[in-house]
Amino acid sequence: MKICIKNATLVSMADNREHVEKGIDILIEEDKIVKIEKNIKVNGEVKILDATNKVVMPGLINAHSHVAMSIFRETLDGYNLQDWLTKKIWPMEEKLEEEDIYNASMLSFIEMIKTGCTTINDMYFMAEETIKAMKKAGIRLQTTRTLMDLDKAEAGIQRLDELKELIQKYRDNDKRLTVNVGIHGLYTSSGEYVEKCVDLAQKEGLPVHIHFCENKQEVKDIKEIHGLSHIQALKKYFSKAHTVLAHCVELSEKDILDLKDIDVSVVHCPVSNLKLGCGVAKISHMLKNNINVTLGTDGQGSGCNLDLFEEMKYAALLQKGMLENPELMPAYEVLKMATMNGAKALKLEKKIGSIEEGKEADLIIINMDNILLKPQNNLISELVYNVKGTDVETTIVSGNILMENRKLNINVNEKEIIDNCDKIIRRIYTN
Amino acid sequence: MKICIKNATLVSMADNREHVEKGIDILIEEDKIVKIEKNIKVNGEVKILDATNKVVMPGLINAHSHVAMSIFRETLDGYNLQDWLTKKIWPMEEKLEEEDIYNASMLSFIEMIKTGCTTINDMYFMAEETIKAMKKAGIRLQTTRTLMDLDKAEAGIQRLDELKELIQKYRDNDKRLTVNVGIHGLYTSSGEYVEKCVDLAQKEGLPVHIHFCENKQEVKDIKEIHGLSHIQALKKYFSKAHTVLAHCVELSEKDILDLKDIDVSVVHCPVSNLKLGCGVAKISHMLKNNINVTLGTDGQGSGCNLDLFEEMKYAALLQKGMLENPELMPAYEVLKMATMNGAKALKLEKKIGSIEEGKEADLIIINMDNILLKPQNNLISELVYNVKGTDVETTIVSGNILMENRKLNINVNEKEIIDNCDKIIRRIYTN
Repeated sequence: MKICIKNATLVSMADNREHVEKGIDILIEEDKIVKIEKNIKVNGEVKILDATNKVVMPGLINAHSHVAMSIFRETLDGYNLQDWLTKKIWPMEEKLEEEDIYNASMLSFIEMIKTGCTTINDMYFMAEETIKAMKKAGIRLQTTRTLMDLDKAEAGIQRLDELKELIQKYRDNDKRLTVNVGIHGLYTSSGEYVEKCVDLAQKEGLPVHIHFCENKQEVKDIKEIHGLSHIQALKKYFSKAHTVLAHCVELSEKDILDLKDIDVSVVHCPVSNLKLGCGVAKISHMLKNNINVTLGTDGQGSGCNLDLFEEMKYAALLQKGMLENPELMPAYEVLKMATMNGAKALKLEKKIGSIEEGKEADLIIINMDNILLKPQNNLISELVYNVKGTDVETTIVSGNILMENRKLNINVNEKEIIDNCDKIIRRIYTN
Repeated sequence: MKICIKNATLVSMADNREHVEKGIDILIEEDKIVKIEKNIKVNGEVKILDATNKVVMPGLINAHSHVAMSIFRETLDGYNLQDWLTKKIWPMEEKLEEEDIYNASMLSFIEMIKTGCTTINDMYFMAEETIKAMKKAGIRLQTTRTLMDLDKAEAGIQRLDELKELIQKYRDNDKRLTVNVGIHGLYTSSGEYVEKCVDLAQKEGLPVHIHFCENKQEVKDIKEIHGLSHIQALKKYFSKAHTVLAHCVELSEKDILDLKDIDVSVVHCPVSNLKLGCGVAKISHMLKNNINVTLGTDGQGSGCNLDLFEEMKYAALLQKGMLENPELMPAYEVLKMATMNGAKALKLEKKIGSIEEGKEADLIIINMDNILLKPQNNLISELVYNVKGTDVETTIVSGNILMENRKLNINVNEKEIIDNCDKIIRRIYTN
């Protein structure tokens, strides 16, 4: 199928283009962007999308989430983290069945499509159900079978075997899908086990995805379990694979200098980190030191929702406010975090993250008519500070239009998915 | 005119009612709420608003803003405060004419209506233009003629005279309008002048509205100008009138204890405070000490937009994150800040701030169909963390429906106002 987006205000995020270009056409053939020019002449069967007065930019990339946790949205208020996990979440998770994971994942995928996110990096269990939902929804997914072994060594080995099978089964299965090596955390796995996991990642050429230094207790636990500081442990275990570190709230300025020695990306999840009472990661210091920093929402249980526009605004404002410097975090750098930096973190930078000829057609069209965007003094700032995910009008992944003019265009009944999720939570809810 | 809202999920914010009530009807006659019951029987000419599966709550109250600064939205990125003011804002403000203030105020009022805010506390100049816009838009306004005298003593006296005239002219002129005593700040006014202003407020029984301790420089300036600490100055000058203190970022825990001795409300403006690199006010400490804390967006130049739902989320998350305690700021307390606490700050608590029989009919109907609100595990949390201003479907002020099903219902051409504001900024823009 051919699609031609006409007369767009393009924010391509490509290094070799202007930040904002007016009156641009974008031609998509099958899954690829094939031409970016003014006044493209089209013939034959071409779907035309008029983007006059609209912004076209790359679909956003959510680099850390737990998509099946959508059903736990707003169960946290009034709890501390430990009580929330032990009294609410874990007892509910024990009751989850395969179909529940499918429905809860699909709820997240619809939320993504409706807020302009086209790729998500997921970490949970029963991944095949999430993959089933991903294929039906049409989004781009990196997922895993979450690994840990400190609860039970044999269970750890079994999980690793399951992940190996998953990697084999879904290799070259769908161009939008990657299975990566997701380790829950250094506080839930032994050193020997982590080494096995990273060996697998190295052998398969896959990124590792892990929670790292989300809160103070975790830092203490790592020290106790591994007899190493969190940074020593990181350097010891993760030198052989590209590692995506979610959170990093507890990294000091000195720790950040040490990050430069290994191949890591950091996923900043500001809303979740605040809501759980963890604090704020020092991302402007990381960016200054050329660490690849990207954005994630975490699961809705702590992260509220999957709207990455909201997450961009928190990322920008928190650094300005905390460091008492309004010149930090220029808006364009923040946009990069949610696009190219996300692609780099997932090792997908050759395929996605910017609108360029030859790349996969993952892009969104944003309606700028909302009065919250008027008058328009600085488009890039508007995208970071005033656009809401719900201003996204059209979402395209791999050349497929998943939403057009706010209408879902996928073979899924949204109302049925919402009803199913309501039923799940009523069945498993723990007070 | 009679309006009956049928079958609502009511979040009345009234002390004597449940936080959430299902299946409630609300009868409005003229400007008042006259009945709140299940299954109200109506006859005669009654406009019916079906609120099945929708939330009805009080219109939100924005306790600190500069409505005519809407045109400066997103002009700040990359600047520090001093450069932004001296190089961009002040040169532009000098070129503003009366009609500009009308158009820019109207832009803000439309933004308010479209994001569920029904009352705003404004501080700027050429207030009669803002009042003209307010009457046409139909919102509830508290405004002023901003006072200061350190630039020029005679100008200060003239401003005070203008304010006195404004108070006379608009007394009992419109039940939705109050003119209060707005003093720019203790760093731009002499002590003698501030005393005159507060005397006026006391004599007229009006609240004072002032910027206070927004940043460190201001605290130093107050000390230098008045020879008193900021708290000593506050106690000296403001003992005779209820004073609405915008910002209070620089108040220490000890300062906050001192606030208890005088009649003040604090307006927390988290987005603006972060964006200007000021920091975060210690509002959970204020709330613990029974200080009345309410919310404001500040002008769009620093506050981005007037969406108070966003402001509520920032208010809640910042305290949890900064103080590393997720149990702080329960969602219902945050809702109070944007409703009843706002009404108290403006001395309008007998008229607005909650949905109660006998109060003015200022209320909003929220569509909860958005997938970001599913599944619905905790309605009060959803309102604070996931509802966006643009989910507000219907906005009623003083019994007038200003927006119904997202369609503006006022005698104003939105597109024309936006075009006018575009023209203003093109005319006055300073690079």
